[in-house]
Amino acid sequence: MADAWQKVMDHAVAIARKAGEVVREALSHDRSVMTKSSDVDLVTQTDQKVERLIIQSVKEKFPTHRFIGEESVAAGDTCVLTEDPTWIIDPIDGTTNFVHAFPFIAISIGFSVNRQVEFGVVYSCLEDKMFTARRGKGAFCNGESLQVSEQTDVHRSIIATEFGSNRDPEAVDRIFCSLNNILSLPVHGVRGAGTAAINMCLVACGCIEAYYEIGIHVWDVAAGSLIVLEAGGVLMDIDGGDVDLMSRRIVAANNRKIAESIINEISAFSPTRDDAPPPDN
Amino acid sequence: MADAWQKVMDHAVAIARKAGEVVREALSHDRSVMTKSSDVDLVTQTDQKVERLIIQSVKEKFPTHRFIGEESVAAGDTCVLTEDPTWIIDPIDGTTNFVHAFPFIAISIGFSVNRQVEFGVVYSCLEDKMFTARRGKGAFCNGESLQVSEQTDVHRSIIATEFGSNRDPEAVDRIFCSLNNILSLPVHGVRGAGTAAINMCLVACGCIEAYYEIGIHVWDVAAGSLIVLEAGGVLMDIDGGDVDLMSRRIVAANNRKIAESIINEISAFSPTRDDAPPPDN
Repeated sequence: MADAWQKVMDHAVAIARKAGEVVREALSHDRSVMTKSSDVDLVTQTDQKVERLIIQSVKEKFPTHRFIGEESVAAGDTCVLTEDPTWIIDPIDGTTNFVHAFPFIAISIGFSVNRQVEFGVVYSCLEDKMFTARRGKGAFCNGESLQVSEQTDVHRSIIATEFGSNRDPEAVDRIFCSLNNILSLPVHGVRGAGTAAINMCLVACGCIEAYYEIGIHVWDVAAGSLIVLEAGGVLMDIDGGDVDLMSRRIVAANNRKIAESIINEISAFSPTRDDAPPPDN
Repeated sequence: MADAWQKVMDHAVAIARKAGEVVREALSHDRSVMTKSSDVDLVTQTDQKVERLIIQSVKEKFPTHRFIGEESVAAGDTCVLTEDPTWIIDPIDGTTNFVHAFPFIAISIGFSVNRQVEFGVVYSCLEDKMFTARRGKGAFCNGESLQVSEQTDVHRSIIATEFGSNRDPEAVDRIFCSLNNILSLPVHGVRGAGTAAINMCLVACGCIEAYYEIGIHVWDVAAGSLIVLEAGGVLMDIDGGDVDLMSRRIVAANNRKIAESIINEISAFSPTRDDAPPPDN
């Protein structure tokens, strides 16, 4: 099947590039906002348009494949990973950035078979950087091989995270507590690109040593997770166990030592899983 | 004198571009770090080399001009603004980013006459964006006119700030308190490029509505302050009064309403001024 997945991946790269064109075009004339779960959970017509564009083009070419897409799930589709070939899509990772034309905006496409990510494509469309990884075959940016940072001293590291769109005071308190602990280790700095996918690509490039977040969704991290692994990095859960892409918690780091140093400082909590059954009405 | 300052500004743009080349070149082979005031206040040989390059070229061309440069001050030069024409230089704004190859690195050059910034040049050298402003003549990026965001609702704003290199627990507590207040307003998001100069350029471009920080130095903000003003924005002190570039506190916003909404949430403190007399030994 190896060749078959390569063909699928080539299509993913092509459609991500096309989606990037649509996003860049929309940036100059259509950034009107709708809100989703809260005043700060934003969506635009462009998110929906780009997701439709990707799904339609895949359906024509690979009619048996399944989808988990941010906007489709928001519209009521289930979010369950099966063994079938599945496209896991975030049409615009960094919608808040898009609304403000802040320069980090990504199209994120992960492709899973037997519940394992087979390839990941993250297109940072304003930087024109195409990040790709194929399982067992390395990670690349615009064709150049990626390698995580060799740093093993957390005090000489940059850590990325995000405040996310959760403004529940208890969650915000835990997020601030973790961040204060990490900053005071001390570390060289804390950053956040405003998109999980690009934060993970920054780990893969060696620009930052680790990224962690509680509250992300599977479509934010499916592609990026393979890009980190194939660049030589590690993935863990916030409590130090194995990562679970449906759990909405992730630590992506250059190595296990840095990941564990960060995990020691994180005040954990558990949002509702992406694949939780819908609540009874 | 108008034409004379234009000639000086042209030289500043040329030397900033040359400095950017040096920084980009150094990025690939020389990022070894020395620390300055603390484990997280970093400096590299490239900071020092770039500052010497700028000062030397200016001395040849404009021998009567004075200088306030980050690395010269660190080496013991006084930091006092006189009425004389003065170049206020940060050779690498975002040294921590430089050390990690994080994509926001700026050369910042402000030029002051009669204690007033006459022009500002910020060259974001990895993005290849040349931001310029001349007093009374607008702000530009790569020649295109800049305009701040028109947003007047703080809840629909992105705010930038930095944790800085101060890890004193009381200062860190105040920094976190302010940030928590602002995030909980709520706002669309909080970002930080890791350089004051680029944060201010992001305000000027309309990508973010405001930037505030306590702990910055005059060389971080001299150029950016004029770029914000000339793009239609406002500058204020953290307590709502007039900005004082030597006070190490700044709010730069798209308009007064957003600036005041932010100021209401900031837990203020006052670091030692840049122009304070040196302590008796």
